[in-house]
Amino acid sequence: MSRVIARCEQLATITDSPGSITRIYLSPAYMQGLALVAEWMQQAGMTTWVDAAGNQWGRFACANPDAPTLIIGSHLDTVPNAGKFDGILGVVTGIEVVERLVQTGKTLPFHLEVVGFGDEEGLRFEASMLGSRAAIGKWEDALLELTDAQGMTLEKALLECGLNPHDYPKADRSKDNLLGFWEVHMEQGPVLEVENLPVGVVSAIAGARRFKVMVEGEFGHAGTVPMMLRQDALAATAEIILMIEKNAQIHGLVATVGHIKAYPNAVNVIPGMVEFTVDIRSDDDALREKVMNLMFHSSEAISMQRGLDIYWKEYHWAPARACHVDFRQLFEQSISEQKVHVKTLVSGAGHDAMNMASITDIGMIFVRCKGGISHNPAESVEPEDADLAVETVLLALDKLAICYLEKQGVTP
Amino acid sequence: MSRVIARCEQLATITDSPGSITRIYLSPAYMQGLALVAEWMQQAGMTTWVDAAGNQWGRFACANPDAPTLIIGSHLDTVPNAGKFDGILGVVTGIEVVERLVQTGKTLPFHLEVVGFGDEEGLRFEASMLGSRAAIGKWEDALLELTDAQGMTLEKALLECGLNPHDYPKADRSKDNLLGFWEVHMEQGPVLEVENLPVGVVSAIAGARRFKVMVEGEFGHAGTVPMMLRQDALAATAEIILMIEKNAQIHGLVATVGHIKAYPNAVNVIPGMVEFTVDIRSDDDALREKVMNLMFHSSEAISMQRGLDIYWKEYHWAPARACHVDFRQLFEQSISEQKVHVKTLVSGAGHDAMNMASITDIGMIFVRCKGGISHNPAESVEPEDADLAVETVLLALDKLAICYLEKQGVTP
Repeated sequence: MSRVIARCEQLATITDSPGSITRIYLSPAYMQGLALVAEWMQQAGMTTWVDAAGNQWGRFACANPDAPTLIIGSHLDTVPNAGKFDGILGVVTGIEVVERLVQTGKTLPFHLEVVGFGDEEGLRFEASMLGSRAAIGKWEDALLELTDAQGMTLEKALLECGLNPHDYPKADRSKDNLLGFWEVHMEQGPVLEVENLPVGVVSAIAGARRFKVMVEGEFGHAGTVPMMLRQDALAATAEIILMIEKNAQIHGLVATVGHIKAYPNAVNVIPGMVEFTVDIRSDDDALREKVMNLMFHSSEAISMQRGLDIYWKEYHWAPARACHVDFRQLFEQSISEQKVHVKTLVSGAGHDAMNMASITDIGMIFVRCKGGISHNPAESVEPEDADLAVETVLLALDKLAICYLEKQGVTP
Repeated sequence: MSRVIARCEQLATITDSPGSITRIYLSPAYMQGLALVAEWMQQAGMTTWVDAAGNQWGRFACANPDAPTLIIGSHLDTVPNAGKFDGILGVVTGIEVVERLVQTGKTLPFHLEVVGFGDEEGLRFEASMLGSRAAIGKWEDALLELTDAQGMTLEKALLECGLNPHDYPKADRSKDNLLGFWEVHMEQGPVLEVENLPVGVVSAIAGARRFKVMVEGEFGHAGTVPMMLRQDALAATAEIILMIEKNAQIHGLVATVGHIKAYPNAVNVIPGMVEFTVDIRSDDDALREKVMNLMFHSSEAISMQRGLDIYWKEYHWAPARACHVDFRQLFEQSISEQKVHVKTLVSGAGHDAMNMASITDIGMIFVRCKGGISHNPAESVEPEDADLAVETVLLALDKLAICYLEKQGVTP
């Protein structure tokens, strides 16, 4: 059996709530998980430390202290009632890669670090990806005052974990000589499964915009107002939802109306008001803006034609982050060498790599998962797929080492 | 100022909750309202009584004890935070008609009764229109065990009002020699206002069917599932809502999706399940069945095409009730004589006349209201419109008297 999968399953037994998998950032189970991961890292031959933000690091240094560092990793925190693989898979894969390098006596011309970030899920404090934010130097004292649902500050939570909250500048890797950040992650979508492929290369992490939309029509009695005299906010919303769906299909991006609320929401009253959300994502920011404007204007036209008012309010915006073309090519070649068809896909979900992109080049590999399911105990990754991801990273490291040495003017 | 409107306003001061108009069936304010109405009935020359179901009756008897009885009325209970006219207007109009007959020394060849029913709104017990149900002989002992939200039985509520719950067979008018039931009611819709007409003649009370519908698709991550691989239950519901709207428009009836709930209703999750309601009404039962079947099959086709399941569950069914053509003609002639254009319209809302139709012929007149608003403090009826309704009933009574005498072989 794949050691990667076995370790994911072992980590899954460490939980804040027995009977389900839950390791919330800086919880007792989260910290216990770090200790186990550190043990694995040390077994693999790495030196380990936990930084001030509660990220677990392991370092496999090369002979040249002045060489740059490649970081491989993902996150170790989970949502409540989580699966075994989201985030974890990427950390364990990194450790496995180092262990295989050591076993085969291979050395690299650059340092290799493995990281398990905290808080990628962003569920405890009113912030997200605090772990990788510390690594890119985006912490400040004000963050320490963030509180969780029980009123505990981030500062106190860090102290209770034996960490020094004010040491966060030491967690900042932005000034370091970095070669890149690689993240292996389960796909969290159905594409690889549908195409029957074990792994895929991520071209970019999609940018996202989120909106709250309010449609205002006229309340009315469901029996007494003829169809022609209605200003039904739900019928207008229905037309807008289909328009959004169609525009997303035509233009090759994803858009979702996930939340809807009608007022007064009674069987015998024509809805006078409806609120809904729009989430739109694309790896192409310009395309997303273009389609967003189309949707915006079409919704105005639909509302005007029906005699209704519509209001859009944006509350989230993140630009797309492209994976570096060199890393993509290394991964593509490594997959191809294993006689696997190369599939390139966009990550619709956000990842720590999004943050890391602001301080170094990023590369991502997706691993097939069952039914596209994540954030759920039913998360499932096949051992052969996980092993193929490890092999892909090892092959890519070989190629990266050659490229690096060539750039240094060294012929291997 | 119109005495009809003045009395509606006076009745509005009697309430269970100061600051708003609320007279729930068998509440202290409801019973206080009956006493005031009884006083007006007596002033108009009627004998009065409250039946076992808490309905207020007044009788203006004619000389011939064997003559049949025409009943004019509506209801005296209200929704919470109600307007001044829903139901009340019809009762007060009936009293005004009798008062005008007495003032002008007119007699009728049949008895005239005015009734103010209780519980038309059906908000207190798990039943509706209990008042007119007693009058049509549809009470039974089991009904007395119905409880309100405070756990009080209908039996106890009647007892607290000084009524004898087991006297309900005496409230039954189904064996009586009835000439008909006339109801004057505010329109509760916008049609008369849009057409600039003070009153209209009701052709029928629409029948209604109500359904809960559940659409089952696939939950998914809003970022990671491509549009082509989605089974979005909300997008499917949007298509169904527009299909329902279009079918209602094409076939000339009303259909409403008033309630909707998406699961899990989160911005970043593709809705895997949606529940919604459908309310469909028409004065033509056969047409309604036909359109209902069209909607049902179209929703199946939409769901199948999108790879989703759909389930319909009916929970309310009431057939249409036609107003008697003779009464319609009497009203039409009476309106026409006042140089008002005759508008015939369907009542989309239910009324006590629906119940009364099972024991006698019914006739209904709608009075224009502002903005189609009802069940709301903003309910508004113009005094001239109310007075025109009174005049219409008086003229129609003249004509009915002539018809009645002709049928008896008496030439007036």
